[in-house]
Amino acid sequence: MPNNIQLDSNGNLRHFLTVEGLKRQTLTDILDLAESFATVDAQSVKKVPLLRGKTIANLFFESSTRTRTTFELAAKRLSADVLNINIQTSATSKGESLLDMLHNLEAMHCDMFVVRHADSGAAHFIARHVAPHVSVVNAGDGRHAHPTQGMLDMFTIRRHKGPDFGALRVAIVGDIMHSRVARSQIHALNILGVGELRAVAPKTLVPPEAGALGVHVFHDMARGLKDVDVVIMLRLQRERMQGALIPSGSEFYQLYGLDANMLAHARPDVIVMHPGPINRGIEIDSAVADGEQSVILEQVSNGIAVRMAVMSMCLGRAPDAGEGA
Amino acid sequence: MPNNIQLDSNGNLRHFLTVEGLKRQTLTDILDLAESFATVDAQSVKKVPLLRGKTIANLFFESSTRTRTTFELAAKRLSADVLNINIQTSATSKGESLLDMLHNLEAMHCDMFVVRHADSGAAHFIARHVAPHVSVVNAGDGRHAHPTQGMLDMFTIRRHKGPDFGALRVAIVGDIMHSRVARSQIHALNILGVGELRAVAPKTLVPPEAGALGVHVFHDMARGLKDVDVVIMLRLQRERMQGALIPSGSEFYQLYGLDANMLAHARPDVIVMHPGPINRGIEIDSAVADGEQSVILEQVSNGIAVRMAVMSMCLGRAPDAGEGA
Amino acid sequence: MPNNIQLDSNGNLRHFLTVEGLKRQTLTDILDLAESFATVDAQSVKKVPLLRGKTIANLFFESSTRTRTTFELAAKRLSADVLNINIQTSATSKGESLLDMLHNLEAMHCDMFVVRHADSGAAHFIARHVAPHVSVVNAGDGRHAHPTQGMLDMFTIRRHKGPDFGALRVAIVGDIMHSRVARSQIHALNILGVGELRAVAPKTLVPPEAGALGVHVFHDMARGLKDVDVVIMLRLQRERMQGALIPSGSEFYQLYGLDANMLAHARPDVIVMHPGPINRGIEIDSAVADGEQSVILEQVSNGIAVRMAVMSMCLGRAPDAGEGA
Repeated sequence: MPNNIQLDSNGNLRHFLTVEGLKRQTLTDILDLAESFATVDAQSVKKVPLLRGKTIANLFFESSTRTRTTFELAAKRLSADVLNINIQTSATSKGESLLDMLHNLEAMHCDMFVVRHADSGAAHFIARHVAPHVSVVNAGDGRHAHPTQGMLDMFTIRRHKGPDFGALRVAIVGDIMHSRVARSQIHALNILGVGELRAVAPKTLVPPEAGALGVHVFHDMARGLKDVDVVIMLRLQRERMQGALIPSGSEFYQLYGLDANMLAHARPDVIVMHPGPINRGIEIDSAVADGEQSVILEQVSNGIAVRMAVMSMCLGRAPDAGEGA
Repeated sequence: MPNNIQLDSNGNLRHFLTVEGLKRQTLTDILDLAESFATVDAQSVKKVPLLRGKTIANLFFESSTRTRTTFELAAKRLSADVLNINIQTSATSKGESLLDMLHNLEAMHCDMFVVRHADSGAAHFIARHVAPHVSVVNAGDGRHAHPTQGMLDMFTIRRHKGPDFGALRVAIVGDIMHSRVARSQIHALNILGVGELRAVAPKTLVPPEAGALGVHVFHDMARGLKDVDVVIMLRLQRERMQGALIPSGSEFYQLYGLDANMLAHARPDVIVMHPGPINRGIEIDSAVADGEQSVILEQVSNGIAVRMAVMSMCLGRAPDAGEGA
Repeated sequence: MPNNIQLDSNGNLRHFLTVEGLKRQTLTDILDLAESFATVDAQSVKKVPLLRGKTIANLFFESSTRTRTTFELAAKRLSADVLNINIQTSATSKGESLLDMLHNLEAMHCDMFVVRHADSGAAHFIARHVAPHVSVVNAGDGRHAHPTQGMLDMFTIRRHKGPDFGALRVAIVGDIMHSRVARSQIHALNILGVGELRAVAPKTLVPPEAGALGVHVFHDMARGLKDVDVVIMLRLQRERMQGALIPSGSEFYQLYGLDANMLAHARPDVIVMHPGPINRGIEIDSAVADGEQSVILEQVSNGIAVRMAVMSMCLGRAPDAGEGA
């Protein structure tokens, strides 16, 4: 199994590279532990000493203020020391010098690398080469995976809809083809036993493996949203609008944008999710993004609790993981 | 009253956006609390745990290493976690996306935004839109206000001249028109009941509201400094020298530069202040800047204590505010 | 003695600017204290509270992610607060404004400046001008000195070869002329009483003072490595290859590159050192860099322990310095 690399010899999480191939219990453990941190996080004093004395290096080969910030906050709230390594892609363009950089950080007794990279598989590559005491967390690699985002979305769904994913109908809408977020969501939802999983997108933006993943494909958005419990909007990469893959922004919004009329096809208690940052008027109407059914900002809050859970578990410092809720 | 936004329903400080409109007691509370931190600050162990578990985000839309550094040090000495958000003005050029960024930071459970912005009113705008648990501190907005600088100047004056501002004659010299520092100083000195407040500047650099603010305007520097207890020099923005507003640098220095001869017009125990960074030979002579009457570096030290006081009070963690000195 | 500036009136280390002129006991104290930190560093919780409440400012006028990172980690593991000051060389090109910046940082109650600068003597210049409560640590100045690198190399040698430097034959290979690392190594090895010290380099890259420093110069690498206990490779600055000083890269590698065949001239238990980052195939073969005799990554780890020792001693917080090993 290609993802065994994520587990240690006792079957515990050591790296967190992808949701794919993990057991449902592992995902549930992450969600349970995150629940305990979400409570801490809301308190006046938000820090716990679980990772005191640990050093976590943020290696962002692709810039992302938002994701880097949530990982940094998660680490600080666990009392870890955080290093933000300023990476000039040019200096590490060769695999060899990248590895030399990593080995140097290991020699400085860093305990975890949080890695974002434009190439699919970069986090796996790094995980295969790190020292035994180092954990790797994938903060997004190319089109492949963004597993902490996937898990924070599961956490958000569970908080609103309860633990029985089998009772839920979930629609993912937009550019699924190019989305690492969607890939991690699809794997997580399948592992958690989602009732029905739908992809709503033009043909050109549905990945060929959708059928094999048990995803029901809809090209008509009204039909795709019919009676769903959860709508997950994806961010439209505007730079791709120039190409032949998808229609222009306004055309796309006509067909696959989410406004109140379209949302009315879903169940009355539907929740609306989006990984952010949102393009108002491009893939989602402001009235919906800021509306009562939107849980978009909750996703951001939950991201910190989920990242605290993943970091603690990978570093073997999750006191009650698996015993919770 | 436009600044009620700064106070909570109990009349306590929640935001610190401007000195204007605050009560004398509030200013005195800040100064008293800063006094207690100034003592801590000089000790070998400079940290207090007042803001442990709090997260403070520095949002500097306009760069300023010095001011950002003093806010960062103040936050760290209160044991808060600090986020330095790297803001590319382009990404937040629309008010809408700026608000999305702020709401995301709120969702990450940031407790305070320290804001510097080139536009007057930016900190007020942000304060009007933040969540109830978030405080905003203005670290300089356009030409409008720089209230922590104003308060650290009051702190410095009080340490040297005692608490009776009514006994003092203070002169502010230079480009008052464009100076947010001067505006905050003028409001603070008026609230604290300064005996006499003078503006010394060419006509083109005196703001039209000077008279209404009770400021006595002098265009002749020797007369303006006559018998003053405090001289506050302003930084001359060299880039403005090209325009029609003021004479060339050397001409300006002839008329409004501070050297020992000019300073002799003031009282013998005069103190000389400057918000920094100083332009030696442009608005102040090195012999005066480094001389016995200069308190310029004390202002820097005091800035940390005053910012600690403001942060603690806004976050409701000022144990003995108002009971001190 | 030009380096008395490094010692306080009791003969204790206050600044650490250069190894030159220090007593053997001072060097041994640093190594002994570093030994105690190396043990802490390998533990699960890597922090000690020795410098809690102290503020250390990294002033890197010349960029170096690796060295800055190790100083930052060393400071954090001592529980100090760290400020990374972003210095634009242009803004501090005049000595005067550099000093104003330093005096401002002193006024903010910074306790230590860690300085890297492209000009030889910059750290001394700063040390001559700081306030009495501030210590300066040289993190590399021009071609002059890189004393913490020199000391971490001594630490690495002592860990492998024991405390009797008189029994050791050490060869430094490569561009010694331009290397501040080599200068600090040569002084440290002499002070510690090294048995024999060799320089292996083309004539153009041997500094004229080599003889006066008791260094035996070899232009033939096989002879220079004959029976040595320690080989210290230097980094070849590729940008200098264009000039007349040294042959092309491949030519240089033919003559002074270290591969397994060349290393066979040394003692069987030789250790291979390099300050990093390494140029694989330029000055060292990958098989040697990653081989069993290489201690290159240990040097990186040791760098943190040695920097913790130097920082603690300079700030007078080294509880048992000199009583150890």
